Amino acid sequence: MLKELPLSQVYQLLKPGPVVLLTTAHKGRTNVMAMSWHMMVDFEPPLVACIVSNRNFSFTALRSTKECVIGVPAVRLAPKVAAAGNCHGKNIDKFRNLGLTPLPARLVDPPLIAQCFANLECRTVDGRMIDKYNLFVIEVVKAWVDPAQKEPKTIHHQGHGKFAVDGAVIALRSKMR
Amino acid sequence: MLKELPLSQVYQLLKPGPVVLLTTAHKGRTNVMAMSWHMMVDFEPPLVACIVSNRNFSFTALRSTKECVIGVPAVRLAPKVAAAGNCHGKNIDKFRNLGLTPLPARLVDPPLIAQCFANLECRTVDGRMIDKYNLFVIEVVKAWVDPAQKEPKTIHHQGHGKFAVDGAVIALRSKMR
Repeated sequence: MLKELPLSQVYQLLKPGPVVLLTTAHKGRTNVMAMSWHMMVDFEPPLVACIVSNRNFSFTALRSTKECVIGVPAVRLAPKVAAAGNCHGKNIDKFRNLGLTPLPARLVDPPLIAQCFANLECRTVDGRMIDKYNLFVIEVVKAWVDPAQKEPKTIHHQGHGKFAVDGAVIALRSKMR
Repeated sequence: MLKELPLSQVYQLLKPGPVVLLTTAHKGRTNVMAMSWHMMVDFEPPLVACIVSNRNFSFTALRSTKECVIGVPAVRLAPKVAAAGNCHGKNIDKFRNLGLTPLPARLVDPPLIAQCFANLECRTVDGRMIDKYNLFVIEVVKAWVDPAQKEPKTIHHQGHGKFAVDGAVIALRSKMR
């Protein structure tokens, strides 16, 4: 049973820079891709910028529908994340192929991913940088976490199939949000 | 002795989403801030997007001079990174205050940071999103690494002074760059 996360806390999920999964739905088909090129843009409402290459099958879906879901995977999903980056959504059902379970979202058409510890329902709010950079500015309109996944460790893609897993967490006196 | 890094490899430094330090130089003063809101935009030439809040002293410097340096700190610099986020450059010399050593860059005025394991000299190439989002698109024009820092572990800011340190690295078959 997913639990709603206050939108004011969304930045804590993306600020550390984990690999995420991005889902889209277009013309009756869903798709999922792995994504590392994303960043927070504002706290609340949470705005995110991301690069979805026009070589990705997801690009046309996101540009056309202006909707996506960002799923945040913990380390146990790393093999599926790598596999998601290795196949093209044009010819296969990647959810089925990867063994990922789609769940209905509340406010957008693209599905949540049951196996992710957090899912963010998003809508494109600024498309001015799409043509030049494949850069979408999206707003998180609803956020979910899976309370069953305690202290999930995220993964960070270093390139060439190498992923750094979160290790120790250090606490320092900081006013940075 | 810093070593030049091919620009084609820059994405491997920023893709995993580490906290970085950003230096600027303006009207005879240098400054440094901590930054987590950044992402890669293109591979080569390496383009990066970043959010520098207009509440930061660095904002005016970056907007005016269109130059900055991104330093990537390893975990041993974590206390300085947190401290950089806790003070405002308007009233103090943050390099001196934090015990960071500025080094001359090759192509831009802002300094490299001797203690960082990588330093990226950058110029703003697109300022269209500054007014609305404080979003700068910058190009990395020269990149340096410190060969003396072997296998540096980066840190990822989770908010409220908590930083995840890179832990294990897992290798998976992946075609993702």
